[in-house]
Amino acid sequence: MTTESSPLTIAQLAELAGVSTATVSKVVNGRSEVSAETRATVEELIRRHGYRRQRRRSTPTGLVELVFHALEGDYPVEITKGVAQVARQHDLTVGISDLRRDPDAADEWLEGVLRRRPSGVIAVFSGLTEPQHEQLARREIPLVLLDPADAPARTIPSVGAGNWNGGLTATRHLLELGHRRIAIITGPDNALASRARLDGYRTALDMAGVPADPALIGRGDFLIEGGLAEAHRLLRLPDPPTAIFATNDGQAIGVYHAAHQLDLRIPADLSVIGFDDMPSIRWTIPPLTTIRQPLTDMAAAATTMLLTLAQGEPLPQNRVELATELVVRESTAPPPPA
Amino acid sequence: MTTESSPLTIAQLAELAGVSTATVSKVVNGRSEVSAETRATVEELIRRHGYRRQRRRSTPTGLVELVFHALEGDYPVEITKGVAQVARQHDLTVGISDLRRDPDAADEWLEGVLRRRPSGVIAVFSGLTEPQHEQLARREIPLVLLDPADAPARTIPSVGAGNWNGGLTATRHLLELGHRRIAIITGPDNALASRARLDGYRTALDMAGVPADPALIGRGDFLIEGGLAEAHRLLRLPDPPTAIFATNDGQAIGVYHAAHQLDLRIPADLSVIGFDDMPSIRWTIPPLTTIRQPLTDMAAAATTMLLTLAQGEPLPQNRVELATELVVRESTAPPPPA
Repeated sequence: MTTESSPLTIAQLAELAGVSTATVSKVVNGRSEVSAETRATVEELIRRHGYRRQRRRSTPTGLVELVFHALEGDYPVEITKGVAQVARQHDLTVGISDLRRDPDAADEWLEGVLRRRPSGVIAVFSGLTEPQHEQLARREIPLVLLDPADAPARTIPSVGAGNWNGGLTATRHLLELGHRRIAIITGPDNALASRARLDGYRTALDMAGVPADPALIGRGDFLIEGGLAEAHRLLRLPDPPTAIFATNDGQAIGVYHAAHQLDLRIPADLSVIGFDDMPSIRWTIPPLTTIRQPLTDMAAAATTMLLTLAQGEPLPQNRVELATELVVRESTAPPPPA
Repeated sequence: MTTESSPLTIAQLAELAGVSTATVSKVVNGRSEVSAETRATVEELIRRHGYRRQRRRSTPTGLVELVFHALEGDYPVEITKGVAQVARQHDLTVGISDLRRDPDAADEWLEGVLRRRPSGVIAVFSGLTEPQHEQLARREIPLVLLDPADAPARTIPSVGAGNWNGGLTATRHLLELGHRRIAIITGPDNALASRARLDGYRTALDMAGVPADPALIGRGDFLIEGGLAEAHRLLRLPDPPTAIFATNDGQAIGVYHAAHQLDLRIPADLSVIGFDDMPSIRWTIPPLTTIRQPLTDMAAAATTMLLTLAQGEPLPQNRVELATELVVRESTAPPPPA
């Protein structure tokens, strides 16, 4: 094969062919979802010019950085397991940073990243500023957000769970058991995951013809203490709920404590459903019914996306959502007789 | 200052002065615990030859590797926090590996380490073979063991907790409440931490003049399931215990489940004490009385030791033990009236 010039990258091929980089990538990777005409155009360009895999300018360091807003609970372990699983297959080291809920720590951390030049960064938070994003982009250090609280900018790839669907499923489970007074304890208002779970709850009620009572919507913070305080308020209403959707496992533990303090038996007097299915949660008494969020798989997916970007390839999709699923244990039952 | 030869390392100075490297290090670092005569000898040698800080031959990579036998529970999070804390102060990256309880994974992991040449390795297990230790040593990659299950070879530095003392304190707490039928559920037989906790239990009973009943010594595995099974056996004895020392928090959760299944109230019918004080454990119902093991501080101490070794300095001591402490919550009370 003779080439008329130096080999072209995907971006250059896309420009010459007048198609997207995603399309060129599909041709290069032998995928089928491309028209015969486009495929012929791109293949002709590759035949004439050659193709070179776009490489990052700096030498890859064999390091993938994983940065947490806070190292707390089971959550970081489940995520690290997924990242380590993919990193191992590619002989990469997983580097871990802990921002300790400290907004100033992100600056210091980013300085380190720019010095270390990892193959890429997985951020388990969404607090990077626009200039910080640009600093990473200028050095061609790709970034993937895992379970971001805020809506990521359209250009930043992210992985999340099917939160809306999980909220719908949790509420439907309680409706099917016969509950009509169903309360919810949300997470922080600015957490997208929480908003999606609340919307799923509302839709489930609406589709079942059960009016949503604003008094039954409790505002939490995804922490045990918040769940405890809000459950106390809900359970002392004149017409209290017979079931509480806690929207995360930590808040469900808070609801357990409130029920215990008020001498309510779970599930005989009160049904409780969580969200997450952290490994330790099946050891609550009674074992918690919850919505499983596949954190380890989500982390593995984020790492695979990062490696694709690190090789200069475009992503097939910028946002990946993994399905949640209902795990029925012993904390939910039909409501007590009125 | 004129020198008669190239500057000497601590090891060379020690050999010439006929003293230990630790002693030379004390002189160099201006510490006081050295005789005036020895100090004079070493200082004279430094004046004549000069002193150079012993450096590792390979360039330090700015990476500290932390390897876990298994990424499970709160334990890895508490440890990673401590390592990250010290690493941050020295601009080092913390690299994490997960051996997934797989004995074969250690070989693959070690290959990666030898390729990456980190500044040092902290191993949260003790399953390295003698040849593997030698591979690290030959490449001058220092190793510190954190909370090793087996007795580390005398030459491998390690950090642990005051396990014997914790066992003593837990048992004394139960004795002081008036318990005489006190059971223990140990960890695996080959885990040193478990042996030390059991010996502390035996000594506390002996010093209180309470005969140790072999039937009350249950054998566990440090897992929730093992605690559950062993608690069932103990609580069905003809003369059952009024208190159980679970020797870790996971087994204490197993004891809670056994008590619940047998309709025993904690602490009215049965007192339970754990060991570890994992962050989530204060949220059991009732909150667990336990022995706090300062995992984050232990991990920070191990990292500091590693950095000392990485700089070619000798350690002041090869084995560091951090104190445990009793945390009284609501799972222990006087025994029920006979």
